[in-house]
Amino acid sequence: MSKNKISPSILPGFMELLPAEQLLFNKMLDTIRNTYEKFGFIPLDTPVIEKSEILLAKSGGETEKQIYRFTKGDNDLSLRFDLTVPLARYVAQHQNDLTFPFRRYHIGKVYRGEKPQKGRFREFYQCDIDIIGSESLSIINDAEILSVIYSTFKALGFDDFTIRINNRKVLNGFFEWLEISSKTDVLRIVDKLEKAGLEAVVKELSEMGLCKDTIDRLIAFISIKGSSDEVIQSLRQMNTGSELFNTGLDELEGVCAFIGNFGIPQANFEIDLTIARGLDYYTGTIYETVLNKYPGIGSVCSGGRYDNLAENYTDRKLPGVGISIGLTRLFYQLREANIIHAGKQSTPTKILIIPMQETMNYALDIATKIRNEGISAEVFLNEGKLGKKFSYADKLGIPYVVAIGEDEAKSGLFRLKDMHSGEQEAMGLSDIIKTLKKLT
Amino acid sequence: MSKNKISPSILPGFMELLPAEQLLFNKMLDTIRNTYEKFGFIPLDTPVIEKSEILLAKSGGETEKQIYRFTKGDNDLSLRFDLTVPLARYVAQHQNDLTFPFRRYHIGKVYRGEKPQKGRFREFYQCDIDIIGSESLSIINDAEILSVIYSTFKALGFDDFTIRINNRKVLNGFFEWLEISSKTDVLRIVDKLEKAGLEAVVKELSEMGLCKDTIDRLIAFISIKGSSDEVIQSLRQMNTGSELFNTGLDELEGVCAFIGNFGIPQANFEIDLTIARGLDYYTGTIYETVLNKYPGIGSVCSGGRYDNLAENYTDRKLPGVGISIGLTRLFYQLREANIIHAGKQSTPTKILIIPMQETMNYALDIATKIRNEGISAEVFLNEGKLGKKFSYADKLGIPYVVAIGEDEAKSGLFRLKDMHSGEQEAMGLSDIIKTLKKLT
Repeated sequence: MSKNKISPSILPGFMELLPAEQLLFNKMLDTIRNTYEKFGFIPLDTPVIEKSEILLAKSGGETEKQIYRFTKGDNDLSLRFDLTVPLARYVAQHQNDLTFPFRRYHIGKVYRGEKPQKGRFREFYQCDIDIIGSESLSIINDAEILSVIYSTFKALGFDDFTIRINNRKVLNGFFEWLEISSKTDVLRIVDKLEKAGLEAVVKELSEMGLCKDTIDRLIAFISIKGSSDEVIQSLRQMNTGSELFNTGLDELEGVCAFIGNFGIPQANFEIDLTIARGLDYYTGTIYETVLNKYPGIGSVCSGGRYDNLAENYTDRKLPGVGISIGLTRLFYQLREANIIHAGKQSTPTKILIIPMQETMNYALDIATKIRNEGISAEVFLNEGKLGKKFSYADKLGIPYVVAIGEDEAKSGLFRLKDMHSGEQEAMGLSDIIKTLKKLT
Repeated sequence: MSKNKISPSILPGFMELLPAEQLLFNKMLDTIRNTYEKFGFIPLDTPVIEKSEILLAKSGGETEKQIYRFTKGDNDLSLRFDLTVPLARYVAQHQNDLTFPFRRYHIGKVYRGEKPQKGRFREFYQCDIDIIGSESLSIINDAEILSVIYSTFKALGFDDFTIRINNRKVLNGFFEWLEISSKTDVLRIVDKLEKAGLEAVVKELSEMGLCKDTIDRLIAFISIKGSSDEVIQSLRQMNTGSELFNTGLDELEGVCAFIGNFGIPQANFEIDLTIARGLDYYTGTIYETVLNKYPGIGSVCSGGRYDNLAENYTDRKLPGVGISIGLTRLFYQLREANIIHAGKQSTPTKILIIPMQETMNYALDIATKIRNEGISAEVFLNEGKLGKKFSYADKLGIPYVVAIGEDEAKSGLFRLKDMHSGEQEAMGLSDIIKTLKKLT
């Protein structure tokens, strides 16, 4: 390369895909989008750049450090770091033009200047749905969110996954009852249970200064397992006397009551009292989703219920519930774990038409007719040997090729080559179209 | 509003839509995307943030002033201001993994910190296609691009539009022949012909110091009108003797030769010798597209042929041809001119199911069955009076509503209400599904 060239590269922590992978990524994104729309969620699109005072209204700590913030002219600007803050701003700003409950989905890129590390991205797609009520929102919405998660992962081709829910009021009420103030620390320790084992967790908790009785009750609480009914019954029997705990328990029961009716099999659902999802945002139901065979990936879809979406921007009380799929990270992890694979095809083209001799005009006409049937078709427009043209189709993984010479143009009978099997079959245009329509 | 609230707003120059408008915008975007894919263009997605040295490799002047550029840690970052520079970087970077000719489309947001003014946006969608050859690329690709433009605007619902082409070699050869060095100034003046009239243009040209003979030839040149054949014939008769001019003329003729075969009616196409599309980028065919009834909107789809896409990043010669639709601006202009209108519907939901008495479970089950047919369905999940629930459907423009009481749940016979006509019709689930499938 000449010395005056700039080496073509992108920044670390940004994902860029080759065509075959991009097609796979887009297919997943379309599947999520279609599922969200089938549940009647409304698409939104908001600016990637917002006023810093808007995006940082509530934040602090990590978020503020990670944010891409800069000035242009007199403006203090930031790139959005999630889709929830822009939603809050949007709903507050346009509240008089919206109908509540407001059900929206948003699929878009967000930005976090994290330290680059494996599986972490500074630019990534989030796929969010939220249902926002005005003043109140029935608990059955929390159950419907489960149904959307279930339908989405089924549509993405997964069967063996578990949606775990918990309730923040149950957690907080329980901690109140035990008079534990350092909830964050305790939850962080408890979170290690699966990896570090019971003994290590008990040791660490007692080092924190918790008494044996408190630790026993804590361990008993997080050890509660079983069907939803069993877990709820065990929680009822704890008789904590905490009003908050009991309200949370009613909510948990309210969600579970509708699970079957939303078509969610018991096998894909459980109450997990150990999940907490950060501590300052959610106020009721919380969700996590794990692929059972790949627990190392962590939660692939998370979210929860919040009491008041837009309190930084409006007095109107806007309770809501929502979830997010971090698609860029999910895609990366699934690919690394060999769970998904790009196909051989790296183009939308279903058929390559190769004109021979003086048949370009005829070939163009055939291509137009195929496209009019909604099928992607391409004419090889450039000079070259026939072998090179077939090789182009082969490299791109185009499933069918037809070469059109003067005989074919005269007779209207073509030899359609299946590039996978190598077989050729003679047929007319209408049969070619039928064959192409059978491709997924 | 309380004093401690932050007023919810976005930055000037950014577009944000209400749900009904967003659905319309998305429909246009999907139409463009589908058309691009039907021609076998491959989807790409590249980072919005790139290294400043990459994005600014070729630029200067206006672009550099408008760019959103900032630092984070040690990195000098910029937001992309078009999709062509990222394409050049992508193709240079991944050239060994790509198959040429490389046909890609990219629909994404780009950023320009322009002065905010009516119809100008700082964040806007571009919808680009390009065909990149390795070393060479046949002129017939330039004709195919015309076909993509034609198909796209037809699919968007337009009939009365004209795709105008010119050729930069013809322009440059002609200026060479006239020994005019200040091409930019002359073209800027000539560009005023339609608005300012012949006399004013001649006056300004002579003030520039051009002699009468040169001005006469210039005026004769830009006054050439007629069918493609007529224009090409007139140009041939000029006998400029310029090799560059003649090469351009051959290219122009080469493009026109295939127009009919690409299915482009003569009425939607013309050679326009006055279009120039900036002066430092394109090297052959150039395109503009105008909606004939709305010339004020300007070109809605422009582009051209370039000799060497990625010369800043690689020694490999990569000639290409492409076009771009600035969708955000187009959408804004079409809406302002009352050419497009958001529908009454502001949700993807086709049917709202309202459970009455104790029929929630039944209603959820019906909704699942309708969704399984690929139709967007919503169950009204929240408390409230029946009137309020119908009003929700009415406000969102949901076309059909069915209220399910115990009688309906028992009999499986529902009264489907057409919210547009107000009429109700009794039918079973399969007929409801048939009715919903008829909706576009």
